[in-house]
Amino acid sequence: MFDQCMKKFLVVAGGGIALLALLAVPAAAQVPSSTATSVQAPPGKVKLPAARSVLDQVRRAGVLRVGVVEQIPWTFTNRSGQLVGFEVDVARALASDLGVRLALVRASSNGIADDVAGGHADIGAAGLWYSPRRALVVNYTRPYSEATMRLFASRAKAAGRTDVAAYRLADVTLGVLKGSPGAAFAPKAFPLARISTFERYADLADAVETGSIDAGISMSPRPEFLVHVAGDRIFLPVGNAIATRSESFIVPRGDADILAYLDSWIRYRDETGWLKSRRDYWFGSFAWADQLDAK
Amino acid sequence: MFDQCMKKFLVVAGGGIALLALLAVPAAAQVPSSTATSVQAPPGKVKLPAARSVLDQVRRAGVLRVGVVEQIPWTFTNRSGQLVGFEVDVARALASDLGVRLALVRASSNGIADDVAGGHADIGAAGLWYSPRRALVVNYTRPYSEATMRLFASRAKAAGRTDVAAYRLADVTLGVLKGSPGAAFAPKAFPLARISTFERYADLADAVETGSIDAGISMSPRPEFLVHVAGDRIFLPVGNAIATRSESFIVPRGDADILAYLDSWIRYRDETGWLKSRRDYWFGSFAWADQLDAK
Amino acid sequence: MFDQCMKKFLVVAGGGIALLALLAVPAAAQVPSSTATSVQAPPGKVKLPAARSVLDQVRRAGVLRVGVVEQIPWTFTNRSGQLVGFEVDVARALASDLGVRLALVRASSNGIADDVAGGHADIGAAGLWYSPRRALVVNYTRPYSEATMRLFASRAKAAGRTDVAAYRLADVTLGVLKGSPGAAFAPKAFPLARISTFERYADLADAVETGSIDAGISMSPRPEFLVHVAGDRIFLPVGNAIATRSESFIVPRGDADILAYLDSWIRYRDETGWLKSRRDYWFGSFAWADQLDAK
Repeated sequence: MFDQCMKKFLVVAGGGIALLALLAVPAAAQVPSSTATSVQAPPGKVKLPAARSVLDQVRRAGVLRVGVVEQIPWTFTNRSGQLVGFEVDVARALASDLGVRLALVRASSNGIADDVAGGHADIGAAGLWYSPRRALVVNYTRPYSEATMRLFASRAKAAGRTDVAAYRLADVTLGVLKGSPGAAFAPKAFPLARISTFERYADLADAVETGSIDAGISMSPRPEFLVHVAGDRIFLPVGNAIATRSESFIVPRGDADILAYLDSWIRYRDETGWLKSRRDYWFGSFAWADQLDAK
Repeated sequence: MFDQCMKKFLVVAGGGIALLALLAVPAAAQVPSSTATSVQAPPGKVKLPAARSVLDQVRRAGVLRVGVVEQIPWTFTNRSGQLVGFEVDVARALASDLGVRLALVRASSNGIADDVAGGHADIGAAGLWYSPRRALVVNYTRPYSEATMRLFASRAKAAGRTDVAAYRLADVTLGVLKGSPGAAFAPKAFPLARISTFERYADLADAVETGSIDAGISMSPRPEFLVHVAGDRIFLPVGNAIATRSESFIVPRGDADILAYLDSWIRYRDETGWLKSRRDYWFGSFAWADQLDAK
Repeated sequence: MFDQCMKKFLVVAGGGIALLALLAVPAAAQVPSSTATSVQAPPGKVKLPAARSVLDQVRRAGVLRVGVVEQIPWTFTNRSGQLVGFEVDVARALASDLGVRLALVRASSNGIADDVAGGHADIGAAGLWYSPRRALVVNYTRPYSEATMRLFASRAKAAGRTDVAAYRLADVTLGVLKGSPGAAFAPKAFPLARISTFERYADLADAVETGSIDAGISMSPRPEFLVHVAGDRIFLPVGNAIATRSESFIVPRGDADILAYLDSWIRYRDETGWLKSRRDYWFGSFAWADQLDAK
């Protein structure tokens, strides 16, 4: 059936040699070194400085210390007292691929960069956006997730207004949480609208729910959660996010290896669909809502 | 209205803890270090070599020295004798985020890589494409802009020929500037066309304008500028660019931190829309044309 | 014709100064250093540690040693006894841009990471996907190619079934090669289907060809090659790949420069269309089939 050339192709290629990367290879598996082709390479080896990366430290210690910040659903304590969330899943997969155990290190949003720079955590994983100040202290990897900002509106006041332009008018009142990204973003993106600032998120939610303001602005998944529990009074009027920011790991400076390691790890966990599946679970569903502590 | 679980979500999440990155954080703000979880991390800190990056040098000196090359509208001297342009805006924003003042260092296209490698400038920002020779001397960051090559054609000779294929015919004459990217590109992309080489750009423009050749090839925004001032005789027959090349910063070799810093800075200034707004201003409008020195 | 401002624009911009990067610049061409602007930069130079990269070693030795793994059409020995293939073309272009000669170093899929880490090869180019184990030993660059997994089906059994969902049914039998990526992928992606494992690729091909199973799963370009030689009995029922994995160079750890060099080189060879043209040749055509040794 198949001609000779093809037989050759099929036989030589038969083992899928170059493609074995997908298969688990035990760490100890070392085959004899390759042999040079007729174009003989010079014998001298490249002498590079010994790699001194967080990666080596982690492997020696047998533990990956990941700085996290408590924020639902990135990282939070569930009913059983365990830390769970998107970042916990990410950190666990990373430690598993590194072949070490995981230690989660609680940090604050303001302190996590110093914690990583000071060696209190090996890396940080906390839905971290770029900030000029943090970028002076640590390096950011390529993004592995993204944060999205959304409008959530009152069905009573805003029904039918499904274009973002409808919220840029002078007679619109938008609610934001004090000190939140939405509070910083709203005056720039909606310069004509009245901005009403709330001290507590529950009050902002109530204001939208009761129709005392037209809409609120906050980060996913809180708008989606409001719709989940009060969809008869609150809706997401605009299909897309009104702003998007990528989220990256932070790592110590002066360490090219941990950056390269995480950049390729992120690409790999993206290509296999794993990162998307975790994002869908934590940001596209509320299947985890029963883990919330009702106290 | 809202059930207990949701209250928990809203209260715990209320501060937008993980999302404070967007807010300005004073450089001195250091909160007490994080505390470890029940999975206690080992006490030993990672000992990395002290970061020795251009980034540290810039912060210590209080000034960012950016190599630029005079080319309208990347960097040029305006009527008031000041350097302005796309790259000047980029360099100023970068210095601002670094918290230092800006010093622009004039360089030549051939010399800028050696200037950065030799420490005469901290980085280079000059619409720089990849060149194999420069890549041996300095590192390129990820792109923050792109250069586009366009066809501009004579209304008299080429009206109605709006497909790039119409310029690949043997009876077509294309004009290029001697020594320009277009001169290198045209014979490869238009192998059948006659290529007419001009010493001066004004002569190339005249040849297209008067219809003595069918079309010219050059980099944006010059084709757009010709249409801006002589749109009754010159038009852009093909909607898209006929070639695109990314433009990156160049930085000293052996410095992983400045690369990581700029890569994440570019991503940030891209996501906020700032880079696009500056590109639109300098490459999509001629609002700056009155800054050109008429002498 | 053109006003004064434009003349200024055209004359100053005339040399395409910032765009000369495309032109070949001899390695020895060094122009006098740039002069500072009125904003004078401080005199002190940045003192960085001497660059100690594989890049310097390669330049000093005058040879680039690229680890390759024999796998058609990535790298294989042709009728004349020469190593040819996609990776050989890539390695040759890279050595050419580095201004050095090329030495190909034969490696095995399991051994190539240790070869690069141990300095037996400067870099590895072998259609390498991410593997957690390799990532501990070497760094991956950004991708320069990608591997695609495809379904190939029996015209006799599967004609008309052109949606991937049609192969997820319980009465479908899918063939895979033992130990191949397809063998790892199939049970996860097609959990209901019966998976039939073959020791030899020729037997898998025969089973699909004769219609004893519904379809096979393997990496391009083997499915395409089967259609090339037996298109009357075998077809590709699904237009797209059923899985995609990026392929990167591997480089020694602790070397930020070789990573940065290759990342920008890949971007450059991508933008010029060169990488695509080589992929089209080796993975989108069988023009090279007559180079296969018929023995």
